[in-house]
Amino acid sequence: MSAETSHRLIKAFLRQPVDRTPVWLMRQAGRYLPEYRQLREKMGGFLAMAKNPEIAAEITLQPLKRFPLDGAIIFSDILMIPDAMGLGLYFAENEGPKFKHMIQHEKDVSTLVIPEPEEKLNYVLDAIKITQKSLENKIPLIGFAGSPWTVATYVISDAKKMLFQAPELLHRLLDKLAESTVKYLNAQISAGADAIMLFDTWGGLLTTRDYHDFSLKYAKKIFSGLQREHKGKKIPCIFFTKQGGQWLEDMLSIQPDVLGLDWTVNIGEAREKINQRAALQGNLDPMLLYSNPKRIQAEVEFILNAYGKYSGHAFNLGHGIPKDVPVENVAALVDAVHSLSAKYHG
Amino acid sequence: MSAETSHRLIKAFLRQPVDRTPVWLMRQAGRYLPEYRQLREKMGGFLAMAKNPEIAAEITLQPLKRFPLDGAIIFSDILMIPDAMGLGLYFAENEGPKFKHMIQHEKDVSTLVIPEPEEKLNYVLDAIKITQKSLENKIPLIGFAGSPWTVATYVISDAKKMLFQAPELLHRLLDKLAESTVKYLNAQISAGADAIMLFDTWGGLLTTRDYHDFSLKYAKKIFSGLQREHKGKKIPCIFFTKQGGQWLEDMLSIQPDVLGLDWTVNIGEAREKINQRAALQGNLDPMLLYSNPKRIQAEVEFILNAYGKYSGHAFNLGHGIPKDVPVENVAALVDAVHSLSAKYHG
Repeated sequence: MSAETSHRLIKAFLRQPVDRTPVWLMRQAGRYLPEYRQLREKMGGFLAMAKNPEIAAEITLQPLKRFPLDGAIIFSDILMIPDAMGLGLYFAENEGPKFKHMIQHEKDVSTLVIPEPEEKLNYVLDAIKITQKSLENKIPLIGFAGSPWTVATYVISDAKKMLFQAPELLHRLLDKLAESTVKYLNAQISAGADAIMLFDTWGGLLTTRDYHDFSLKYAKKIFSGLQREHKGKKIPCIFFTKQGGQWLEDMLSIQPDVLGLDWTVNIGEAREKINQRAALQGNLDPMLLYSNPKRIQAEVEFILNAYGKYSGHAFNLGHGIPKDVPVENVAALVDAVHSLSAKYHG
Repeated sequence: MSAETSHRLIKAFLRQPVDRTPVWLMRQAGRYLPEYRQLREKMGGFLAMAKNPEIAAEITLQPLKRFPLDGAIIFSDILMIPDAMGLGLYFAENEGPKFKHMIQHEKDVSTLVIPEPEEKLNYVLDAIKITQKSLENKIPLIGFAGSPWTVATYVISDAKKMLFQAPELLHRLLDKLAESTVKYLNAQISAGADAIMLFDTWGGLLTTRDYHDFSLKYAKKIFSGLQREHKGKKIPCIFFTKQGGQWLEDMLSIQPDVLGLDWTVNIGEAREKINQRAALQGNLDPMLLYSNPKRIQAEVEFILNAYGKYSGHAFNLGHGIPKDVPVENVAALVDAVHSLSAKYHG
């Protein structure tokens, strides 16, 4: 039996009754916060921050000091596993993430070593421990990783071309990434993560069949390998495929506790389809944060109403917070969720 | 009453019986063809080709000389309307399309003039006439335009930001684009286009409600304004939203003859949902053209079988042909559709 949780967010993840709809925001620790930008300037960039456990913990806590959020997510990146495999993650100025060593040939895959998290990713585990000390169990902390398919799209110059030209090689890579991810996420759980999220940012690039064969299959391998209970507490596991709205029912096959919804999905229709077989997380359009508090309140009301008087909704955006939205709009969003959601509960 | 058509593609668009599933391919006249690349080098770029009616007609016909395709699509671009409005379309080396004058303020929209197709877009109309002469009614010719929302994403630096910050301004722009598009497409029909396709490449960026309000609403305005019969022949009208698989039933509200499907949709499920209220066009993953003939045949069979023994399927890709796929794979695809589809008909 699982011990009872008092966290509103964990309760929602487990489809238990709550007093208000909990809310956290993907990329809530990020560039829209002036204090984040200051620290980034001082530290010299993202990777230096993410690999310093004290700093990563500090950044994780930054948004919690401003907003009454119901959850924290450890400050890190979905590409830490391939970096730990020795592929050499770096960020070029004003560009996305890049790798010094890309995966192209048989040998590139066969020589990849599954990283031991305690050796190669210890900075993430330490950041989780430090953050948990500060949080004093008042707010749950989410650990995360990228789905193997999504990580593959960054370490292969054209992952879809490989899918069609060398599918077996791609499968071997995905399998190694999945095995690494199981170890990594279990290490995060052991270090104190209260919930786990697997980000499949690029699953939506695939056909339905390829989504099953190249994305969902490896997500399932991960979800089956996770310690889903730790020290008597259930560890809710969230799966999120951006542009995956057509495949929500297919995703149930990996036995997620929670499914993430991007902003293109109607959450009311999703709730009917899923029919309480998983909790739902989402799904405000992140670009709405460029509008104004009144418009934000209206959209929050729309989503809460579409979900209705059911348990199992964790409010969030449908994707990460854009880098330059006004901080006061983020505050308005968090307040709107708490103040407008009470009437849908209890 | 419409006169009867003998074109396999038009019959499929109108959900009439055919002997084999017809096939054409988005961007079938394009960079994967060596003869196209040669001409492009000689002419000095895309715009010089598209604005020269003889050359545009020649390029339109290039793929038909190689493959037994069931349709041609006029060689042009979805951005010809804003170019004709004076915004100054150009293509920077190895970059996408750009405009000299972007839409940002009230004045930018209020000063926009609806272009008279016969004056400002006559090169497209002439290209249609020249192409039709060569085709001698053996193959139907498709005319096209971009949806107002999709065109807007190119003429505004961040259209989604404008959607949330200045929705009324965006609506005024979309309305002018829709009005221009009605005139333009009707002029294409008068010039001889046998069918019309409206490309909503970026509708999938929107929430369901915003898709209705900012994309579908203007597509509806266009579809209501089109001459859907010309010289006694019905002109089938195709609507295609990439990443719009969740909204297929919503699209029926604009009364399309045909709905385009991208590669993420299962065409069997789409056919059941649409239940013969429109024909379907699609939906092979364009990246599959990097694989090999055997794999291509298997995928064609999968799609034909998923659609089943129903009328109303025009085979196509789920998006344009990538620029450097092997020509022999395109040939294999066209042959596979014809040879494998006979058993699903008659």
